[in-house]
Amino acid sequence: MTFKVALIQMAVTAVKSDNLAHAVKLINKAATNGAQLIILPECFNSPYDTSCFPKYAECIPGQTTDLLAQTAKDNNVYIIGGSIPEIDNGKVYNTCPVFSPSGELLTKHRKIHLVDIDVPGKIRFREADTLSPGCDFTTFDTPYCKIGIGVCYDLRFPELAHIYGEMGCKFLVYPGAFNMTTGPSHMEPLLRARAVDNEVYVALVSGSRDETASYVAWGHSTVVSPWGDVLATTEHLETIIYCDIDPDFVDKVRTQLPILSQKRTDMYSLTNVVTRT
Amino acid sequence: MTFKVALIQMAVTAVKSDNLAHAVKLINKAATNGAQLIILPECFNSPYDTSCFPKYAECIPGQTTDLLAQTAKDNNVYIIGGSIPEIDNGKVYNTCPVFSPSGELLTKHRKIHLVDIDVPGKIRFREADTLSPGCDFTTFDTPYCKIGIGVCYDLRFPELAHIYGEMGCKFLVYPGAFNMTTGPSHMEPLLRARAVDNEVYVALVSGSRDETASYVAWGHSTVVSPWGDVLATTEHLETIIYCDIDPDFVDKVRTQLPILSQKRTDMYSLTNVVTRT
Repeated sequence: MTFKVALIQMAVTAVKSDNLAHAVKLINKAATNGAQLIILPECFNSPYDTSCFPKYAECIPGQTTDLLAQTAKDNNVYIIGGSIPEIDNGKVYNTCPVFSPSGELLTKHRKIHLVDIDVPGKIRFREADTLSPGCDFTTFDTPYCKIGIGVCYDLRFPELAHIYGEMGCKFLVYPGAFNMTTGPSHMEPLLRARAVDNEVYVALVSGSRDETASYVAWGHSTVVSPWGDVLATTEHLETIIYCDIDPDFVDKVRTQLPILSQKRTDMYSLTNVVTRT
Repeated sequence: MTFKVALIQMAVTAVKSDNLAHAVKLINKAATNGAQLIILPECFNSPYDTSCFPKYAECIPGQTTDLLAQTAKDNNVYIIGGSIPEIDNGKVYNTCPVFSPSGELLTKHRKIHLVDIDVPGKIRFREADTLSPGCDFTTFDTPYCKIGIGVCYDLRFPELAHIYGEMGCKFLVYPGAFNMTTGPSHMEPLLRARAVDNEVYVALVSGSRDETASYVAWGHSTVVSPWGDVLATTEHLETIIYCDIDPDFVDKVRTQLPILSQKRTDMYSLTNVVTRT
């Protein structure tokens, strides 16, 4: 059963209420264009800036997720709500909430791996300055297929994609915000390798580029097929890109190239420690 | 301590003695041009064809490895001898022999993961029809850095690259022979992702393309930096490409982006089963 996804590469401002209204407008547009699963970028209601995270943080449920739940219901679509700074028990997380077409909060993913980068003269960013990491794998079922969620830097850890594949996911979604230093070198090869290694669809949804922001996003939201081909992509401007996802194609690729059953478990073994304990 | 590697993208014929003489000539040329580590492609002394492997197979040591050992000594260079069909105790392996500048056989890597591909109308190839798989990880030390070896399809398994990284390798070398179906879609993103994920240098050395062969090689031998940048590459014709490898740059990248110390070992764990037992 093929389904249509929309990747909303939206412009994020410093005004939360503007960001929310803008996100709803773009979601409505994507739904009108036939999208059944709509994905927002990382930190779509707040600037991507460690000093902003505590200020913009909300509880879940809260203002932002209530609005997204209603918007999912209004349009009868799944929404992967990019991410928002979430506050819980005094800690702040970079959290992706997921909504069903009936407006139910299905699950939320707290970013597991926090960005830590220091390239002299180019970029320094340390999410742990204000954020705490999540400790759970996050998947959800749809009538189309099971979907696994990571947030941006989580993409750098092949173990996560592998475990999602083993859990039965055929589509991995990463709301993200690569920057001008890491984006050009790393984003596409990592997306394509996660897709090829696990024979799954992979999408990353970025905000559009704001050259005046303290953290300048690379953009280039992309969907990759289980064969590693880029199915949909864009440059750095605000836009919505659409892509048809065919879960049956995952099975076809896995038959053609049966790498998942060729793992040498007599030589190495990747363990999901969370499930085991 | 920077060192110069040469990737010999040589034309392979059906005549073993021609292949050997040609390999020696190209190694001599690369050494004359200053290469300190010289890499041959997968199956450089035999057509890449399951029906040929048993016919061309040799013991190690044997004719081919004796010649490579002498050539390493003559030129005072390391040679990663691509791969050859090896026969041992009635079984045939796809084996990469490695030689020191003094002509010593340092180690050999028997391809761990055997190609199994069936893309209707494009390609069908099953190494297990005539080959047996190796069961060992293969690394060796040089004055420059520790180096890990895989053969072609081994590249598809991120666990191998990860384990080599954990074993201290800063350079991963894959003699290979991607084909016209998998090469364009998979080779570069896999090489770049292995490099970025493990923050190591990665090289793949292919034979040149022979459109008349039963298995047509993609070529495009490539070296990638720990930052994921393509440092040297080529098209499909016979050629030698050169690249300087700087092991200290590995440490620099690992400081800038400390992903290797950010693994969530409380959530997942990759175990080297061979070493553990």
